[in-house]
Amino acid sequence: MTRFRLTLEYDGRGLMGWQRQAHGPSVQQHLEDAVLAAFGETTTVHAAGRTDAGVHATAMPAHLDLAKDLTPFRLSEALNYHLRAAGAAVAVLDARLAPPDWHARFSCTGRAYEYRILLRRAPLTHEAGLVWRLPPPLDPTAMAKAAAHLIGHHDFTTFRSVACQAASPLKTLDRLDVVADDDRLTIHAAARSFLHHQVRSMVGCLVLVGRGQWSPAQLAAALAARNRAALGLNAPPDGLWFVGANYDGA
Amino acid sequence: MTRFRLTLEYDGRGLMGWQRQAHGPSVQQHLEDAVLAAFGETTTVHAAGRTDAGVHATAMPAHLDLAKDLTPFRLSEALNYHLRAAGAAVAVLDARLAPPDWHARFSCTGRAYEYRILLRRAPLTHEAGLVWRLPPPLDPTAMAKAAAHLIGHHDFTTFRSVACQAASPLKTLDRLDVVADDDRLTIHAAARSFLHHQVRSMVGCLVLVGRGQWSPAQLAAALAARNRAALGLNAPPDGLWFVGANYDGA
Repeated sequence: MTRFRLTLEYDGRGLMGWQRQAHGPSVQQHLEDAVLAAFGETTTVHAAGRTDAGVHATAMPAHLDLAKDLTPFRLSEALNYHLRAAGAAVAVLDARLAPPDWHARFSCTGRAYEYRILLRRAPLTHEAGLVWRLPPPLDPTAMAKAAAHLIGHHDFTTFRSVACQAASPLKTLDRLDVVADDDRLTIHAAARSFLHHQVRSMVGCLVLVGRGQWSPAQLAAALAARNRAALGLNAPPDGLWFVGANYDGA
Repeated sequence: MTRFRLTLEYDGRGLMGWQRQAHGPSVQQHLEDAVLAAFGETTTVHAAGRTDAGVHATAMPAHLDLAKDLTPFRLSEALNYHLRAAGAAVAVLDARLAPPDWHARFSCTGRAYEYRILLRRAPLTHEAGLVWRLPPPLDPTAMAKAAAHLIGHHDFTTFRSVACQAASPLKTLDRLDVVADDDRLTIHAAARSFLHHQVRSMVGCLVLVGRGQWSPAQLAAALAARNRAALGLNAPPDGLWFVGANYDGA
């Protein structure tokens, strides 16, 4: 068997998220179906992050093992051909050989997300489902001040979905930057790993601060509460993008 | 009657272009239907540029006259409500009062387009229909050199659709800049007005130059031929965006 590392882009609109689901199409299912169609092999594709329904990716690392002898280039061309034929909004941006012990999820030492907000009253056209539209204004300075409270090693129970399967609510948040550019506001989040809904929950509370409904101190208090009931707002999946992952030595 | 000036955004995918057509939905029809639904008035909406099927706009000026007494804010809110209810990918970004002699098309003294190219092998996901995907490489330096031949006052017959209804093929092209940024290539075009298909035809030939199939001198020769048969390639509508218009004193 040969292990291949893929870099994937996908449009989360119309997808049930990364993981294979009984009730709708997923990124994993589209890829595994493409492998079966292309090479007649049944395989499992693993990703660095198991994104939720409606969440997007610009550069999601993944891996799979194949018995068939082929080059990474042939693999990406064949998968893209079959993904396209299936009408899947999933594309293989890059493929390369990986060591047999390299694992897209378990070898991953850093994950980065962007949360994209567009400030305007008018409904969305091209970007419907790709950004969170909010009426202006939002105060990015207050949001940045609040975000600073979340950086570091904390119990993130408040910002964790009740469905989260992680063994511990303790995580180290390395980056949570609020970048304003005209009518766009982007929140950049990076950590070794995140709890389920953590980014969306942090963003939702930062938006409360941006609107003046919460003070930065209230966000700090919500974190300290270590209680899901202290969550102010969970942001919709629309604006969430998985944008990159790190691997030690790669 | 009161004249209102609108700024519109629209997603050209699934639209037959600006003008009302018998065989499918258009931006004009969506807007006129929204006016009728909101205010019970039958009106004609005029735009600065009558874009083709599949072409997009981020800021298209338009105007309409209404008998009903209402504020620009109420107008934009009502139109957006009805556009959204109709599932139209058209949004009113701004509305304001306009003088009765102000005309979105005939008062316009400058129009700006962007043509967006994404250089990669992989099929598109989020941006399908919104950019022209081309396999790399393209040589932006050669393209810029070729583009310089098109700047100024010329007979653009070569770059004009056979369906073009303009009285004269003489136009003054003010700007045709080629901007490369990583895997993105954007061509910025500005003129008082353009012939039908002019931007797409210029972009198509610039791409031939970027691929090394044409020299910049060959593009100059195509212009000098003043013959549609000398056109090398017409770019698809996907990557074309109407991004702005100028009005003297506004």
